[in-house]
Amino acid sequence: MEIPIAEELAKKQKSISVAEFFEKNRHILGFDSAPRSLITTVKEAVDNALDACEEAGILPDLMIQIERTGPDYLTIIVEDNGPGVVKEQIPKVFAKLLYGSRFHALKQSRGQQGIGISAAVLYAQMTSGRYTKILSRTGPDHPAHYYELMINTGSNEPDILKDEIADWFRPHGTQIELEMKASYVKGRRQSVYEYLKATAIVNPHARITLIEPDGTEEIFERATDKMPDPAEEILPHPEGIELGTLLKMLHYTERQRLAPFLRYSFSKIGLYTADELCKAAGLDPETDPHALSRHEARKLIEAFHKVKIMSPPTDCLSPIGEELILRGLEKEVSVDFIATTTRKPAVYSGSPFIVEVGLAYGGKLARDDKISIMRFANRVPLLYQQGACVTTHAVENIKWKQYDLNQPGGGLPTGPGLLLIHVASTNVPFTSESKDAIADIPIIRDEVELAVKEVARKLKHYLSKQKNLKKRKEKEVIINKVLPKMAAKVAGILDREVPDINPVVAKIMGNVLVNRTLKLQEDGSAEVTVKVKNFGTSAQTFKVHDMHPYRILEAKPEPKVVSLGNDYDYIWELTAAVGSSKVLSYRLEAVSAEEIAKFPELIVEGLEEEMVTGAKAIKGVF
Amino acid sequence: MEIPIAEELAKKQKSISVAEFFEKNRHILGFDSAPRSLITTVKEAVDNALDACEEAGILPDLMIQIERTGPDYLTIIVEDNGPGVVKEQIPKVFAKLLYGSRFHALKQSRGQQGIGISAAVLYAQMTSGRYTKILSRTGPDHPAHYYELMINTGSNEPDILKDEIADWFRPHGTQIELEMKASYVKGRRQSVYEYLKATAIVNPHARITLIEPDGTEEIFERATDKMPDPAEEILPHPEGIELGTLLKMLHYTERQRLAPFLRYSFSKIGLYTADELCKAAGLDPETDPHALSRHEARKLIEAFHKVKIMSPPTDCLSPIGEELILRGLEKEVSVDFIATTTRKPAVYSGSPFIVEVGLAYGGKLARDDKISIMRFANRVPLLYQQGACVTTHAVENIKWKQYDLNQPGGGLPTGPGLLLIHVASTNVPFTSESKDAIADIPIIRDEVELAVKEVARKLKHYLSKQKNLKKRKEKEVIINKVLPKMAAKVAGILDREVPDINPVVAKIMGNVLVNRTLKLQEDGSAEVTVKVKNFGTSAQTFKVHDMHPYRILEAKPEPKVVSLGNDYDYIWELTAAVGSSKVLSYRLEAVSAEEIAKFPELIVEGLEEEMVTGAKAIKGVF
Repeated sequence: MEIPIAEELAKKQKSISVAEFFEKNRHILGFDSAPRSLITTVKEAVDNALDACEEAGILPDLMIQIERTGPDYLTIIVEDNGPGVVKEQIPKVFAKLLYGSRFHALKQSRGQQGIGISAAVLYAQMTSGRYTKILSRTGPDHPAHYYELMINTGSNEPDILKDEIADWFRPHGTQIELEMKASYVKGRRQSVYEYLKATAIVNPHARITLIEPDGTEEIFERATDKMPDPAEEILPHPEGIELGTLLKMLHYTERQRLAPFLRYSFSKIGLYTADELCKAAGLDPETDPHALSRHEARKLIEAFHKVKIMSPPTDCLSPIGEELILRGLEKEVSVDFIATTTRKPAVYSGSPFIVEVGLAYGGKLARDDKISIMRFANRVPLLYQQGACVTTHAVENIKWKQYDLNQPGGGLPTGPGLLLIHVASTNVPFTSESKDAIADIPIIRDEVELAVKEVARKLKHYLSKQKNLKKRKEKEVIINKVLPKMAAKVAGILDREVPDINPVVAKIMGNVLVNRTLKLQEDGSAEVTVKVKNFGTSAQTFKVHDMHPYRILEAKPEPKVVSLGNDYDYIWELTAAVGSSKVLSYRLEAVSAEEIAKFPELIVEGLEEEMVTGAKAIKGVF
Repeated sequence: MEIPIAEELAKKQKSISVAEFFEKNRHILGFDSAPRSLITTVKEAVDNALDACEEAGILPDLMIQIERTGPDYLTIIVEDNGPGVVKEQIPKVFAKLLYGSRFHALKQSRGQQGIGISAAVLYAQMTSGRYTKILSRTGPDHPAHYYELMINTGSNEPDILKDEIADWFRPHGTQIELEMKASYVKGRRQSVYEYLKATAIVNPHARITLIEPDGTEEIFERATDKMPDPAEEILPHPEGIELGTLLKMLHYTERQRLAPFLRYSFSKIGLYTADELCKAAGLDPETDPHALSRHEARKLIEAFHKVKIMSPPTDCLSPIGEELILRGLEKEVSVDFIATTTRKPAVYSGSPFIVEVGLAYGGKLARDDKISIMRFANRVPLLYQQGACVTTHAVENIKWKQYDLNQPGGGLPTGPGLLLIHVASTNVPFTSESKDAIADIPIIRDEVELAVKEVARKLKHYLSKQKNLKKRKEKEVIINKVLPKMAAKVAGILDREVPDINPVVAKIMGNVLVNRTLKLQEDGSAEVTVKVKNFGTSAQTFKVHDMHPYRILEAKPEPKVVSLGNDYDYIWELTAAVGSSKVLSYRLEAVSAEEIAKFPELIVEGLEEEMVTGAKAIKGVF
């Protein structure tokens, strides 16, 4: 009898430990080049530190120190003031892949996989042959523990090289120190500095200190002492539950009746909905869930889609919020326009998620390049694999011509734009363990697309207004060049004083005319009159500010007065219907002709510069 | 003493089984939508079948059957004639993640991770709640074994629901049957049909039969009975070995002396090189490798970079080959131009790899779209995540303007082009377990870029030639319009016969003139003369074909004669130096004036149509 080839092949069959797997496939974890390996390590350590601090309600204070220990080698130290890790858990938390506390919890957190930091430990030992040092303390009454750890790749279990009590000045916190093949780069988007900067933007409650290899200390100071609302753990939502998963839940439940099983195993199923679901599935609410057949379970799944069930609760999510996105974008670059939006929560495969978007435009952003995208998932910046990310695909899907941006050759539009996109979820579906890109889940793509279109519409409105204003401005410049010359000429011929052409300009342009005249009286006082006329095609509401160091008398109407050091700011709030005129007047005592000649220009607040003739215009609050 | 928060948090810490991990992150394995889940399943089963057949030296004969079993559910059956799997291994091979035979072997194979097929089993049970059926037989003297399997996700171990002996007509082979939530789509690139078609192109030794849900049978017949050269297993190459990995190898080796350790642990280190390396590292070749310190191991790593070591052997790779790429592209679409190239092997992190590229252009390919890319890794088509793939990035990096293609807005160039890119390696660095895209490894990107530039240069040459030929053609058309009218006019005035203008046209155009004259003699025979003159600027070699049904006499020089049914093809092979003339002549017996008037046009083979005046030109063999 011939020995089958299969017998020969079978000899090579064996188990692969998850550590061996990732040792061979380290690029999947984000360790594919020297600069990226450093960023990935810092990112995993910072993610853990921020998650732990938030879970413990501690304002995070992180220190990241990077030292050069050889031409290709760096030592990375990340220290936090978090709750620490209990002694027994330290080896597994840091030196076993697929071990963690956040994998099974349905709530928004940065680390969800139980791989991150141990992957850095694995990479460190692979490239430098070095153990990782851990120092952790859980409270002032407890000692600090010091460990030296490696991962046994064959078994994926920790190798404990040292385990001792240590002195540490911190009352609680954790410090990790790794040596690895890595390189420190500066001045590009994909760098530790930029990563921490972006992290600080969306985590304003954290203080982050970076000590670079050359000793430079960069501090990203916290902008608020308020912790973000903690994300609450929820039950799975029935929408998106797969048949196999339901069968497993039915098998393992401790409930003896179907209706309570439904109520206590899923979110948003109450007494009434549970009964409705049983009815829709044609099942007795009193049935033992363990006795359900595959066919009956399938009926239940169908009922989940037929019966109206409320959306999942969203206190499991912690979005950044429109205000912080706005502030973040303002910090990032000087721009002319910012729009933000936060979508309503949606659900994919039972996991709730929220999309938030901010769009900055103009200012110092590059005009001829494609727009930039800053991507975030659960408040963590995503720096790599932009082309593989659902957020990018959603932006590329949009026909940007509709929003007045060019899109040569498809893809991202060009223009001085910066998009900030944040996806927050109890389970962000990353394309790989390196957590660089979000997978192409249709409902997530749709939500991102809708959010981006919302801010794009606002941008379009802004751009078309800018275009009109630019045209008006050009017209006014021409008029302002021609009219004074004509006026001077005519005045010369007629031997009269050169008239004020502002009213004419305002009339031609359809602007709001704001004209102040000061008449010196013989008694040394002065009569001041401000004439306001709206030549435009729509009613306008605005404020007129007259700022100078003099007290005013007999003002009609009475302005609001704000004292500004040496000056007073007299403020009239006006609404001018189309074609209507208003007159403001007051009197000044004891002013000289010289003083009057130096009177500062009037300021109009609340109108575009191009819409005002005769005064300086400032839009918005100052 | 206060209980630290860390104690509370520690309660949630736990191990995550790799099956649980992928149950939650199934999109990482390529199961993120119904159509894609089907393709991923077929792909994993086909990969395994082809790998097994090749390892056993069997010409693969695969059958893929897809049946609809519910509105959202499909049953997938994949059957092969491979070597089968031994009974004891069946449960783990199919129902345990991270189990396999190819993970530790350094040679090119499709499956390298030990995840693929068990991931499909996991997805099937998650979505349909169903076990997977396996039937396998290792030889005619052995029974077939039938199994029903599920994966226990908590432990990542197989659950064996049934294990029995079965009847099967096949002498050896394996059949897998899974039911899952999936959908069958047709007529787009990302479909089972297109996946199998692309697989057949690069695996011409395989016969693949697809039975679609509607019962349609598609057979991709094998194009050759020759198995590809089997890929041989190699030792790791010293280039790219990390310090930590070397320390591990030193620790576990059975060798007692350093020099033999080097010779027998690495490829391409012989007696001489081993001594050189020890010298360069300042180490005694007789040292016990187990005694090496971290510092000494680092010296050894440095020596690996200093001492010249030959490139790794490439018999571990099995490239497609330029001929097959050419044939594959020809099959795919009708095009005007094809160029191919195969780079020399290169090495990343100790793994050898080869890049092969084919570029098709013109024909029926869409002119206004971006060029298409067909990506392959180890003979497996990659259908998803094109934007995340190093091959795409390499193509986008190229300044295509240099090669006469437009590249609006950067990214892929536009034009009627199709690029086929194959990366073959002992360890293809995919960006995730779904094996859709190759990671951005700089040396791989460089190799792809160089290969693509090579074919792009050929394309540029072709395009500029086409442009010149087009200009010549336009010129000739004009000349051919004007000259005959002038000739007719002059002939009319002088009352002479209208002259043959071909010689003049050939002279102006710098063409090869081929002019046949037939003169009827009084005896009913005819004298035939073919004058050939090269008016061009370079020597030309070509064939003149005179095809007609008559026997010829007194031919000078004697042509080659090929009988073509009713016609004879008389072939003269000529080389004409610049400015030189040749005359061919023969005699025909008993022809009439009518017959002579119907004589078919001469054909010139081996010259561009635009380069010939007076005859039809056909380039290449016919």
